[in-house]
Amino acid sequence: MSTIVAVDTRDVRFPTSLSLDGSDAMNPDPDYSAAYVTIRTDSADGLAGHAFVFTIGRGNDVQVAALDALREHLVGREVESLLGDMGAASRLLVHDSQLRWLGPEKGVMHMAIGAAVNALWDLRAKRAGEPLWLHLSRLSPEELVSLVDFRYLTDAITPEDALAILRAAEAGREERIERLLAQGYPAYTTTPGWLGYSDEKLARLCREAVAAGFPQVKLKVGADRADDIRRFRIAREVLGADYPIAMDANQRWGVQEAIDWVGALAEFHPAWIEEPTSPDDILGHAAIARGVSPVRVATGEHVQNRIVFKQLLQAGGMQVMQIDATRVGGLNENLANLLLAAKFGVPVCPHAGGVGLCEAVQHLAMFDFVAVSGTMEGRMVEYVDHLHEHFVDPVVMRDGRYVAPSAPGGSMEMKASSLDEYDWSRTRTDPSA
Amino acid sequence: MSTIVAVDTRDVRFPTSLSLDGSDAMNPDPDYSAAYVTIRTDSADGLAGHAFVFTIGRGNDVQVAALDALREHLVGREVESLLGDMGAASRLLVHDSQLRWLGPEKGVMHMAIGAAVNALWDLRAKRAGEPLWLHLSRLSPEELVSLVDFRYLTDAITPEDALAILRAAEAGREERIERLLAQGYPAYTTTPGWLGYSDEKLARLCREAVAAGFPQVKLKVGADRADDIRRFRIAREVLGADYPIAMDANQRWGVQEAIDWVGALAEFHPAWIEEPTSPDDILGHAAIARGVSPVRVATGEHVQNRIVFKQLLQAGGMQVMQIDATRVGGLNENLANLLLAAKFGVPVCPHAGGVGLCEAVQHLAMFDFVAVSGTMEGRMVEYVDHLHEHFVDPVVMRDGRYVAPSAPGGSMEMKASSLDEYDWSRTRTDPSA
Repeated sequence: MSTIVAVDTRDVRFPTSLSLDGSDAMNPDPDYSAAYVTIRTDSADGLAGHAFVFTIGRGNDVQVAALDALREHLVGREVESLLGDMGAASRLLVHDSQLRWLGPEKGVMHMAIGAAVNALWDLRAKRAGEPLWLHLSRLSPEELVSLVDFRYLTDAITPEDALAILRAAEAGREERIERLLAQGYPAYTTTPGWLGYSDEKLARLCREAVAAGFPQVKLKVGADRADDIRRFRIAREVLGADYPIAMDANQRWGVQEAIDWVGALAEFHPAWIEEPTSPDDILGHAAIARGVSPVRVATGEHVQNRIVFKQLLQAGGMQVMQIDATRVGGLNENLANLLLAAKFGVPVCPHAGGVGLCEAVQHLAMFDFVAVSGTMEGRMVEYVDHLHEHFVDPVVMRDGRYVAPSAPGGSMEMKASSLDEYDWSRTRTDPSA
Repeated sequence: MSTIVAVDTRDVRFPTSLSLDGSDAMNPDPDYSAAYVTIRTDSADGLAGHAFVFTIGRGNDVQVAALDALREHLVGREVESLLGDMGAASRLLVHDSQLRWLGPEKGVMHMAIGAAVNALWDLRAKRAGEPLWLHLSRLSPEELVSLVDFRYLTDAITPEDALAILRAAEAGREERIERLLAQGYPAYTTTPGWLGYSDEKLARLCREAVAAGFPQVKLKVGADRADDIRRFRIAREVLGADYPIAMDANQRWGVQEAIDWVGALAEFHPAWIEEPTSPDDILGHAAIARGVSPVRVATGEHVQNRIVFKQLLQAGGMQVMQIDATRVGGLNENLANLLLAAKFGVPVCPHAGGVGLCEAVQHLAMFDFVAVSGTMEGRMVEYVDHLHEHFVDPVVMRDGRYVAPSAPGGSMEMKASSLDEYDWSRTRTDPSA
């Protein structure tokens, strides 16, 4: 038996705004940041759980304060009973009635809970000696269902529905694990498409994307329509008529504006339009999806929880689900999201990039392939080549595909040297260091 | 000219859980709390802007951290230019691209922005020497429209629509101001209905509500169906067949459960069912509204922003809009909500209670009467008799109605002695004090 003895938090920020990496129509100068949490125990194994909430700079301190508020729920608890019933562990935090007022189940407090849940999963997988995707892929359908909070979901998916989906994917799990280990999981790249890049850089990066084996690229759009047309034309010229090019408006538009703007880019046959409007506007997404068909609507990186995902599916407002590893209430809620997508027959193409999102979300996509959807057809994980050098077990890309991680855990652990070097509180108090 | 010189924050908590005041199906033991902000200037007038975010205990420190994160946007700014264009002042905070990632426009960060905006409004009204409701009631339709962020709203309401609504209510403003000063604004009371109270206390408080002149009471429901039936029967026996009794489930149910449970209480002719399910479930609210008609669905105290209110109206999921003074992005966003309600012909019956919510939201209801909807028909502000003694300008009730405030400002200022006495950080570090 062991006990949680510390919940350490760090405010970690990388000065990415200096190079315009990550610039888009709504986020002109992000500083990719992590509100980082480490759950430590008194076990002789020395293992700790690591996770974080991704932010883009200012306010990362608020996110750290939310992590700090969870400490009293965790320190002193017996590790084995928490890890042995991760459904209960998640509810312990999500259902705190006083903390719930700060959401409910959305925003800063919910993301902090998600990071704590993910850190517990990291610890559990490390103790099992397995990479997280493989650890999850070997859980029984019954245990997986026990992880999900079905409150507010049963008009779309019941525990029985979920069990049926998971049981249907039970056959072939081992074969799919072998396939993942041999072939990896498909990726697409956003690296060429940031708004802050010159036309020459865009063209060069498109060529490099093809050379690296990526089957799709994505362009940021939405700041200036003429610019978008010019940049899309450049990408098409470099990539050819049939190469999939997705586009991403980062919530820039209202409903009619989205329909009009996408219409103006329709000649370039975009693979999807991502975040055309507010992530809260379910009915708006549905109207846009009707208005831009056959272009598909993709969204999810800012979708606050499973309840909004449920409705986007019910309303026909989302043809591609883009889960994010650190936006919702952690792995448990993302399992609910994967099951909803499977129920509605919508492919999951996770959001990644930022700092550490590729490392984190690859595990969910691979688990989805093995144990939920059972297919990689039409599925890809976003990939951006930023900041991977700060991770203990960074993503490995091969021929445009994510190589299945083999190290134990969830891959969210940052190097101690990076945590020290980019510690924001130290940076502020001693800028000369 | 003057400058903002300080943004002071306080973590203030009242131990209300000890008496079970405020107990409901989802919040068994709230400690009513305020993340409190004071905006100070170097003006010789000595006036400061006061506001807060209401929370129910744990996590109030996180909410304070979010207020602290706004300090760098405010300190050093010229007061007159901020107060002279409150639309721009609101956008300065809401549109910060890095802070926006923490929502967007929802949860801890958005509520903090709302408090900062409300504190600026308090300061502006104090400088004008007017109570906030009256100050707003004398603004031109054009200035009022300039306060609203129409992003993500124009598929439901345009600036031109808003201008037409406000111009239509321009005639008669002074007459309605006189009527408010003479008669006040209707209230209903939730005091009898908390789940933690005995049947005897429920009956006694119902009798007292009628004696005090309240035209409606509200009962908490949703924890146990047999209890709800027994308690509703007691209330009906005390209050008579025709007295309006609303009920509030505080998000306890799923969609079908809500329809079934309300059906079991239909014999008591509830005035409305409030928060039957998750505030995020727009389509769920619409299904419930269809399923429980003619009982009306009321919601809003946890609705995160104008975008969700818009959809609840578009989908027919809300027949009574219950704005809250400290949930959304402040007065500016609540103006958007009032305009949406007017556009869709839905009455606004604000949520109040907690600590200071009655003080804060009465101004919005009175302004709505004077300058937006132009009517009190079917409108009431919730009233709960808790913790008013801590305010410099507490609400005054007369014959079941809110007396129109006359002191300058927005009435959110707490007494300095209360701020000191219930300061949480002091309480924790020195429990004997």
